Amino acid sequence: MSGLLTLAVDAMSGDRPPESRIVAVQRFLQRHQHARVILVGDEAMLGPASESVSRKFKERFEIRHASQIVGMDEHPRNALRGKKDSSMRVAVNLVKQGDAVACVSAGNTGALMATGRFVLKMAPGVDRPAILSTIPAINGHTLMLDLGANADCSAAQLFEFAVMGSVVAREVHGIAAPAVALLNIGEEEIKGTHVIREAAQMLADSSLNYIGFVEGNDIFTGKVDVVVTDGFTGNVSLKTMEGAAHLLGALMREEFRRSFATKLAGLMAGSVLRSLRRRLDPRRYNGASLVGLSRMVIKSHGGADDVAFENALETALLEVKKAVPEQISAALQAERSLKVAAK
Amino acid sequence: MSGLLTLAVDAMSGDRPPESRIVAVQRFLQRHQHARVILVGDEAMLGPASESVSRKFKERFEIRHASQIVGMDEHPRNALRGKKDSSMRVAVNLVKQGDAVACVSAGNTGALMATGRFVLKMAPGVDRPAILSTIPAINGHTLMLDLGANADCSAAQLFEFAVMGSVVAREVHGIAAPAVALLNIGEEEIKGTHVIREAAQMLADSSLNYIGFVEGNDIFTGKVDVVVTDGFTGNVSLKTMEGAAHLLGALMREEFRRSFATKLAGLMAGSVLRSLRRRLDPRRYNGASLVGLSRMVIKSHGGADDVAFENALETALLEVKKAVPEQISAALQAERSLKVAAK
Repeated sequence: MSGLLTLAVDAMSGDRPPESRIVAVQRFLQRHQHARVILVGDEAMLGPASESVSRKFKERFEIRHASQIVGMDEHPRNALRGKKDSSMRVAVNLVKQGDAVACVSAGNTGALMATGRFVLKMAPGVDRPAILSTIPAINGHTLMLDLGANADCSAAQLFEFAVMGSVVAREVHGIAAPAVALLNIGEEEIKGTHVIREAAQMLADSSLNYIGFVEGNDIFTGKVDVVVTDGFTGNVSLKTMEGAAHLLGALMREEFRRSFATKLAGLMAGSVLRSLRRRLDPRRYNGASLVGLSRMVIKSHGGADDVAFENALETALLEVKKAVPEQISAALQAERSLKVAAK
Repeated sequence: MSGLLTLAVDAMSGDRPPESRIVAVQRFLQRHQHARVILVGDEAMLGPASESVSRKFKERFEIRHASQIVGMDEHPRNALRGKKDSSMRVAVNLVKQGDAVACVSAGNTGALMATGRFVLKMAPGVDRPAILSTIPAINGHTLMLDLGANADCSAAQLFEFAVMGSVVAREVHGIAAPAVALLNIGEEEIKGTHVIREAAQMLADSSLNYIGFVEGNDIFTGKVDVVVTDGFTGNVSLKTMEGAAHLLGALMREEFRRSFATKLAGLMAGSVLRSLRRRLDPRRYNGASLVGLSRMVIKSHGGADDVAFENALETALLEVKKAVPEQISAALQAERSLKVAAK
């Protein structure tokens, strides 16, 4: 087993059946000869459903029983206290115990974050974890955080998010000096809350490539690599883009269905629209990282299908290979030394 | 002149030349026989440029000189203190003096709001004004506020915004019992900040048709008529949708340009895409209302062309006809009486 990287995979959480997770795991194991998966959930259900996977990847696949499931609307506190044998909790425990190097779950974000914090704790030097994801942009993508872990944030926390986002951009996405910006309501220095202005000062004094404030529309222009904001604003912004994209898609379908001529045009334009859909496919962007924890926890969208879930597994493996938690601790330490040296 | 409704129009602010504002004013006067316009700005420039309008609408068109212009990035405080003869200030003054019933400006939002607050004051019973606009949704549109006037908001202020949004939805958009919701990061009662939970309680106890929390994607689904949020979140959400729409448009153009076949498909689909663009045309949604002031002030997008600016003029006229400021005061008074009665 040495040399293998083991992921703990919560098979039960989310809006899709475990079978869909198993399909993703099978393809993932096929693709990565050095990856191993512990699938967590109801043994009686997972055993028969994953027979072919067990047979094919004998040494790299294992099932671990968990008797409970955390509901998608369940309060994080309930999940923590009342569901100690949930598939989510057992998967996170496996990481804590060193049986796995990271875990992936499509379960409810609040419960996953609370479980991650409680079981794994923060990476050394980190105050608060954040949810980080890639967002499609004009020439590739933008990293954005926090997407919902912390409704209220201090300037020091926003600063920490900037450091963590920078590390992921550099280590995982290979950007040498990632351009970092604070999300604000105006590009001028005069706008924004007190907290944001304070964070801006901290970033200007740091070693990060801080480029200033950006507005919501700049998330997509490619002028910034890492967009930093509090979890409330980040989550609203994320859901707004999902809603806007959905509206555009719905109206487009409506317009193409209007008459025989427009239906014909739709057929003609079909390949173009499919190619566009592929480029913006939310499945490609599935797998948000709960950065700042001592080990990697990846949150998949609840409704993720097998293609999307496989992307979440890929993200987990990549971040483990790049030692993201350790790099985050090192980067925060470096910023603090810089600050002390400046005094 | 009796029976005429006079709008004060700032001809100088924004990113388009005064000529473009004049074109909009001309069409507006043509369409509304009971409307009158005082065009504010550099007389030497506006006089010659609007000669044909002056001739055609002799009794319903007038130029008022203003020697200064507020810059698009100018600090509101500078505008207030140092630009007392700006086109923006003079236009707002005309409303204060009773020479006009409302004013329209494409100038910088912060300066316009500051000038409006300083000169016109709040409508009786209102604590803070908010920026309100219509957002396209699946079956029409959604009203949303605050879009940027107040970065930090108390629960009582969010409550006030809900009342003001409800009044505009009812009076201007003819919705009998507008569904009002608070923008939050989860639909469950357990999420969100303390301020939002407190505002939710106030709304639940009010006479408004409060339907609970919505998330960013719900802005576009038509399930809610009025989305209430603080100015920071609202502005980020608004800019996010602009950015997402822009990204989709850019990618679509790119895809259609890829080859001869896709160009041909683009031609075939042209009418459909144009029709889609018409439905989502931001010009149709131009004209944000600074609600809560004692008189109506309408903020046009800085880059608004004549079609868009004309829509802002239409919005101003409609809101004046519906006596929005008076209705807002009455509605807030009614909510307060209800609260006292309940005690």
